[in-house]
Amino acid sequence: MPISIAYLGPPGTYAEAAALACAAWLTQTQGEAPLLIPYPSIFQTLQATASYQTQLTVVPVENSIEGSVSITLDTLWQLDILRIQQAIVLPISHALLSHAPSIEAIQSVHSHPQALAQCQGWLEKHLPTVKLIPTSSTTEALQHLDQNISVGAIASKRAAHLYRLPILAHPINDHPDNCTRFWVMGLQNSETGSHSSLAFSLPQNVPGSLVKLLQIFADRNINLSRIESRPTKRSLGEYLFFIDVEASLASDAVQSALHELREQTETLKIFGTYDIIEAQPPS
Amino acid sequence: MPISIAYLGPPGTYAEAAALACAAWLTQTQGEAPLLIPYPSIFQTLQATASYQTQLTVVPVENSIEGSVSITLDTLWQLDILRIQQAIVLPISHALLSHAPSIEAIQSVHSHPQALAQCQGWLEKHLPTVKLIPTSSTTEALQHLDQNISVGAIASKRAAHLYRLPILAHPINDHPDNCTRFWVMGLQNSETGSHSSLAFSLPQNVPGSLVKLLQIFADRNINLSRIESRPTKRSLGEYLFFIDVEASLASDAVQSALHELREQTETLKIFGTYDIIEAQPPS
Repeated sequence: MPISIAYLGPPGTYAEAAALACAAWLTQTQGEAPLLIPYPSIFQTLQATASYQTQLTVVPVENSIEGSVSITLDTLWQLDILRIQQAIVLPISHALLSHAPSIEAIQSVHSHPQALAQCQGWLEKHLPTVKLIPTSSTTEALQHLDQNISVGAIASKRAAHLYRLPILAHPINDHPDNCTRFWVMGLQNSETGSHSSLAFSLPQNVPGSLVKLLQIFADRNINLSRIESRPTKRSLGEYLFFIDVEASLASDAVQSALHELREQTETLKIFGTYDIIEAQPPS
Repeated sequence: MPISIAYLGPPGTYAEAAALACAAWLTQTQGEAPLLIPYPSIFQTLQATASYQTQLTVVPVENSIEGSVSITLDTLWQLDILRIQQAIVLPISHALLSHAPSIEAIQSVHSHPQALAQCQGWLEKHLPTVKLIPTSSTTEALQHLDQNISVGAIASKRAAHLYRLPILAHPINDHPDNCTRFWVMGLQNSETGSHSSLAFSLPQNVPGSLVKLLQIFADRNINLSRIESRPTKRSLGEYLFFIDVEASLASDAVQSALHELREQTETLKIFGTYDIIEAQPPS
């Protein structure tokens, strides 16, 4: 049986592009071509691996323009058995697809809310009166194109080729340095890598406790590459903190920091150690 | 001319409920009933006040379950002339509205993505096969109900009364302590209040600089009630930090902290000092 990888489908999404990069990496390192399996939501892709339906899942964690993908962080905290095997950074380049004869004929644009937000400036400039309609994935937006030539969709060039749809404009993202970081999640504990990720909640009502916890890393010269807060969902003003550090979990510095963190946090979850692949979008 | 307040409309949204609470506060403190003006997006409500079309705007900042409202933080950073006049915390209680004879007859549920996410557990339990369709506001979801009795929408009880729609289930949010914090934004600098908010970017490539900045507050016993990171949109891994402190901007401690912050940050933006109103949903 080949390795199976869950991703937010259908084929043509940016998550599929990241899953293809993951498949190429696995083929190279393990000599085996994996099977890609689409799921209708990020939650369901993570559930698939947590319930042993697939060995791996590729999920978006953070986009350089829109920020964190909350559903990914919240689900990882909740499931608690998935570990990061690898990070993949993918450049994101959006295209406007439509059967319209020209962009002036477009009256509504469908896409995933993140893609709509990433093209907001372009849309305001070129299609100021257009109606923006959110969909659950960039590929799902394409199903509206065949019904009506006044409909446009924002998706990747690969999606245009895959579903044989005309590209009216490309690239249309407002920031050229648009990229998304994905994590490859699995059930194995990884031992080595350049980056590590963890999350914790703090004992209630302890002022200044976040500073003390961050100081644990600073004292050991461990660089934090990211800190993200998420609500605990218990009450407004209580947070979980997700932290990425530029060090391996196996290093003495991180081991010593974790020892101290365990004493000062309410709950501490360690998501793993991993390297980062800079991927190219599939053609 | 009465004071005008922009909000994410149409009437019946939770933003309107917060705007009504703001109007009640203004009527009480200034003896004048304001005019509420709906806009189709959060961005446009903030733009309305920044371009002198309305004196105030009420925007959601943070929900206790779904976390920060990115578009609000990103737009405030970008516009840079709006100041917080007041914070309003509003309990959120979702209802399922539909013309269906019973919930079993519902095949799709329309609502704002935040509302769909906040009822995810209830929907999975009671309507596991239903199609979830995102809309740009909870009120916008209601326009689909009249076309088809198999359609449901998630909105407030007030929206049901306003548009005379049947309530099939209430409350349906997964977490009973669901509430949203709103900010009332205007162009005046406020001088006093129990809380203050600011945001900053850091000089690039300075490891540990966030810890040093948070230490500035800790050294002065200023409690941080929230820290939120947002991408700078320049490149992946560069962040802005939004911070709420439990102190007035006018206090000596905060003034001294700001003096030091100005030297250590790349850009520092101060959004104002304000008090917090605990509002009740309008009936």
